[in-house]
Amino acid sequence: MDLSLIREDIDKVDKEIIELFQKRMDLCEEVAKYKLSVGKAILDKGREDSKIEKVQTFVDDESMKVALSDLFRQIMSSSRKLQYKFMEQNSATVRAECEIVDKIETQGAKVCYQGIEGAYSYLAMKRYFGEDVDGYNVPTFDAAMKEVAEGRADFAVLPIENSTAGIVNDTYDLLMKYDNYIVADLVYEIDHALLGLPGAKVSDISKVYSHPQGLMQCSHYLDEHLDWDRIATTNTSLGAKKVLSDGDIHQAAIASREAAKVFGLEVIASEIRNEKNNATRFVIISKKRSFAKDAKTMSICFEIAHEAGSLYGILSHIKYNGLNMTKIQSRPIEGKMWQWRFYVDFEGNVNDAAVLNAMRGIEAESTYLKFLGNY
Amino acid sequence: MDLSLIREDIDKVDKEIIELFQKRMDLCEEVAKYKLSVGKAILDKGREDSKIEKVQTFVDDESMKVALSDLFRQIMSSSRKLQYKFMEQNSATVRAECEIVDKIETQGAKVCYQGIEGAYSYLAMKRYFGEDVDGYNVPTFDAAMKEVAEGRADFAVLPIENSTAGIVNDTYDLLMKYDNYIVADLVYEIDHALLGLPGAKVSDISKVYSHPQGLMQCSHYLDEHLDWDRIATTNTSLGAKKVLSDGDIHQAAIASREAAKVFGLEVIASEIRNEKNNATRFVIISKKRSFAKDAKTMSICFEIAHEAGSLYGILSHIKYNGLNMTKIQSRPIEGKMWQWRFYVDFEGNVNDAAVLNAMRGIEAESTYLKFLGNY
Repeated sequence: MDLSLIREDIDKVDKEIIELFQKRMDLCEEVAKYKLSVGKAILDKGREDSKIEKVQTFVDDESMKVALSDLFRQIMSSSRKLQYKFMEQNSATVRAECEIVDKIETQGAKVCYQGIEGAYSYLAMKRYFGEDVDGYNVPTFDAAMKEVAEGRADFAVLPIENSTAGIVNDTYDLLMKYDNYIVADLVYEIDHALLGLPGAKVSDISKVYSHPQGLMQCSHYLDEHLDWDRIATTNTSLGAKKVLSDGDIHQAAIASREAAKVFGLEVIASEIRNEKNNATRFVIISKKRSFAKDAKTMSICFEIAHEAGSLYGILSHIKYNGLNMTKIQSRPIEGKMWQWRFYVDFEGNVNDAAVLNAMRGIEAESTYLKFLGNY
Repeated sequence: MDLSLIREDIDKVDKEIIELFQKRMDLCEEVAKYKLSVGKAILDKGREDSKIEKVQTFVDDESMKVALSDLFRQIMSSSRKLQYKFMEQNSATVRAECEIVDKIETQGAKVCYQGIEGAYSYLAMKRYFGEDVDGYNVPTFDAAMKEVAEGRADFAVLPIENSTAGIVNDTYDLLMKYDNYIVADLVYEIDHALLGLPGAKVSDISKVYSHPQGLMQCSHYLDEHLDWDRIATTNTSLGAKKVLSDGDIHQAAIASREAAKVFGLEVIASEIRNEKNNATRFVIISKKRSFAKDAKTMSICFEIAHEAGSLYGILSHIKYNGLNMTKIQSRPIEGKMWQWRFYVDFEGNVNDAAVLNAMRGIEAESTYLKFLGNY
């Protein structure tokens, strides 16, 4: 049979499917009206499951059963989403209060970062808030989040991912621990160098200090020097500070070129990172739900029932609403062996109807949903 | 209008949709036959996009346009999958040669692990291969993979994830770097303790040695001792070895209770890990594509086009074939800023028809697919 003739037949069938689908959606709006009037939940899992069971009885072939089940899951998902939209227009929004501002107010802000002067977080803070920023440092990421949560700082600057090493686990976990929000992000190019005392040479070195991420990002270089002790510091420039204060020519630190200037050390090997393209993305954290009107990235975190297809079902709300998922990460849930929570970024503004519809759907069908920010 | 009456109408509409859907699938099998006869690819993106454009012209409402576009993406996705299945049955399989064995042969095997005697990898090796295993150690994860790739070892034992700290980045990255396969896995309970010289007390300690994962997994305990130097070693028991050889009462190591016995150290603080439930999953790596007949977890890695809905489209092949995705992880692609590759586990045996169908679909629609193992 000729391909174009088959396709003509397919087009005819499709036209009929469209008419039926429209008819079905109109009926579903009636259902939404009813549910709104009696305060009934949109998702009726029992009803959906029995529908799926029933449609499968119309065919014998196993693959066709799966295809039909898929088709009706899609149709019911569309129905549900039209119903969510109807309710969003006709009743209270699910959205908690958010303030929408022209731009994030950085003037006169008190800003907190983890580490010491010269560390990458310090440099990122300077770039975002300007040279005159009223900044101060704390020893851990947790402490930085706490400063913001308890109102002592307006903002915190934390690294969230590195283009080579991957995500910064602690920052992800702390976004769950505290009710703070991401209100902005910026990318800072990382230019790791080996810093030593003035006059030190590579052959002098036997100990190297850096943050575990710094050690990982330079692992190829370090593997050429397996006899060196690798010493983890709580941030990259603390190592630089120690090299200077110990005054030991056998010690070196992996840190930025800027840190060499800050601490009066010398660059004894440069471009030692595994990847030429190495950058860290930092997030700006605030306690206020105050987001820029042109914010275009939504970050959420959710947990799901431990059953087949759960994750797939949640992601369908993003896709259905025409939103583009840009990232998915997972982290273990503390206290629950081998269960993971998911961190998803998708494009959208917290004010968009599509975003509200997606959030309403995800909230209804996940076991836990947390809104992490819009920037 | 009464809810049950609306639902009766919906059921009638659904019956008609099913009939049309069946008719459409039959037509699509004709298309598959044609494509097979002329060697044409299943996915014709231009044709699919113009179909989506066309169906949207039948309605005015924006939400209905989205719903219809979604419906037809779903229908065409099912068509494509039926076509993949048809081709799998009627032409050469995409599956490369795999040997299916009753169980993985461990007798007389030469086994390689990273680290030294007493390390968790060593303990996991003993548990899987038995006390009499012919094992030897190498200094890095990369070296362990290389021993297997170049045939000097039959198997390597590598940690892949920890229930608290999350995935072991290096192991994930090395599964891409080498053409080795996961043929088994096992879970080993982690029981971190602080080990010191006989007679040492917690108040004596000023330096603590461990693998970065060990330091992370005990970060709450260590944060109570912010004045301690945290020193990263390439594995947990190397730190224990160093404490013994230095003979310095101010030094301690975070390692297993077993390591204390191996090195003649004392447990000076126990149960210091953040999580009571802490376990590491290890994978057994082989160069041979030889998998157990009762293997039930498939591991794959793929990369996708940088466009909306790509990831969702790939995952749909798993769901469509009735397979359950059990895990998804992402890692940066080296040399490509902010692009990630995905590691997915799903339930199935490399011999199952459903697995073969899913793999064919994913292979056709991803930019890169690598089969990592079946266990």
